Amino acid sequence: MPLVRISHAAGKTTAFAEALSKGVHDAMVETFNVPKDDVFQVLTDHGAGLRVTPSFLGIDHGPEPVFIQITCSEGRSVDQKKALFAGIASRLAAEPGVPADDIIINLVETKRENWSFGRGLAQYA
Amino acid sequence: MPLVRISHAAGKTTAFAEALSKGVHDAMVETFNVPKDDVFQVLTDHGAGLRVTPSFLGIDHGPEPVFIQITCSEGRSVDQKKALFAGIASRLAAEPGVPADDIIINLVETKRENWSFGRGLAQYA
Amino acid sequence: MPLVRISHAAGKTTAFAEALSKGVHDAMVETFNVPKDDVFQVLTDHGAGLRVTPSFLGIDHGPEPVFIQITCSEGRSVDQKKALFAGIASRLAAEPGVPADDIIINLVETKRENWSFGRGLAQYA
Repeated sequence: MPLVRISHAAGKTTAFAEALSKGVHDAMVETFNVPKDDVFQVLTDHGAGLRVTPSFLGIDHGPEPVFIQITCSEGRSVDQKKALFAGIASRLAAEPGVPADDIIINLVETKRENWSFGRGLAQYA
Repeated sequence: MPLVRISHAAGKTTAFAEALSKGVHDAMVETFNVPKDDVFQVLTDHGAGLRVTPSFLGIDHGPEPVFIQITCSEGRSVDQKKALFAGIASRLAAEPGVPADDIIINLVETKRENWSFGRGLAQYA
Repeated sequence: MPLVRISHAAGKTTAFAEALSKGVHDAMVETFNVPKDDVFQVLTDHGAGLRVTPSFLGIDHGPEPVFIQITCSEGRSVDQKKALFAGIASRLAAEPGVPADDIIINLVETKRENWSFGRGLAQYA
């Protein structure tokens, strides 16, 4: 059920966005018990709108960060979260080739009853 | 006090966006105890940036989903949430005519003290 | 660690966006124990997409609101939140000159384990 917001630099190809979309989703399927057909994503490209520290916590950031904010139901363990972060980073580093240092991920957890996937129903309430 | 983010397909008319804005707000006034004059919305249009599963939980999705993410204070009952989802879907299905299956809604609840509606004050703290 | 989303009116200068970015960050450093080098921001400009009530809670809003949504770890006190709101408003009112009434702020708090600042690691877990 996650709603995924991916913010990336402007001027990228469709294949780039497609790889971001697929990489994040595949990692959620593998580590977060997200069904394969559970895809709800908003991708946006930004020019100067993305701002990132040159260095934080010992990690150096280039000029093209990828911010991934995932709103999802609560209940995953810390181990699952670690696996998700690692899974997203390794996939996006492989394809489309985003440096793993430039992948910033944040989870926003909500109650299960807070979702409607269409038809005005609260499918998980 | 909700902050409403509405993400819809590109190439729509002003009337389309206006109807989305009004339909969501009217449903919140009716079901969520939101004051009539409490409007804080960010609408964005997206081309290929919106990605949705063709089918999930028995609901088929077309190519133009409308994602509605509402950040609001905590405290509404499950019944209120169900009423909100139904109220938004029925309104947007009527006007501007979004198929109810294509309306995806998610609530993010926060503490009441987490809001400033201007002037640097925490009006609800 | 906050992820800051700033939504402002279209047609502004780079200096305007820069001052928004800096003012919000400086306020977080001063009031929220955010390290100086902890900058993760997404700025977007919007034309008609920003919708705000003309008046709410006794505050009148002009046509160009600035919405600031800050996702951060939980744990700040109410006093810190009040100081943050005041600090952002006073800074942005001074530079780039946004009326304090038009600055709308909302905090979304998450667990500390919900963040990855690069390299696929959960730095705070």
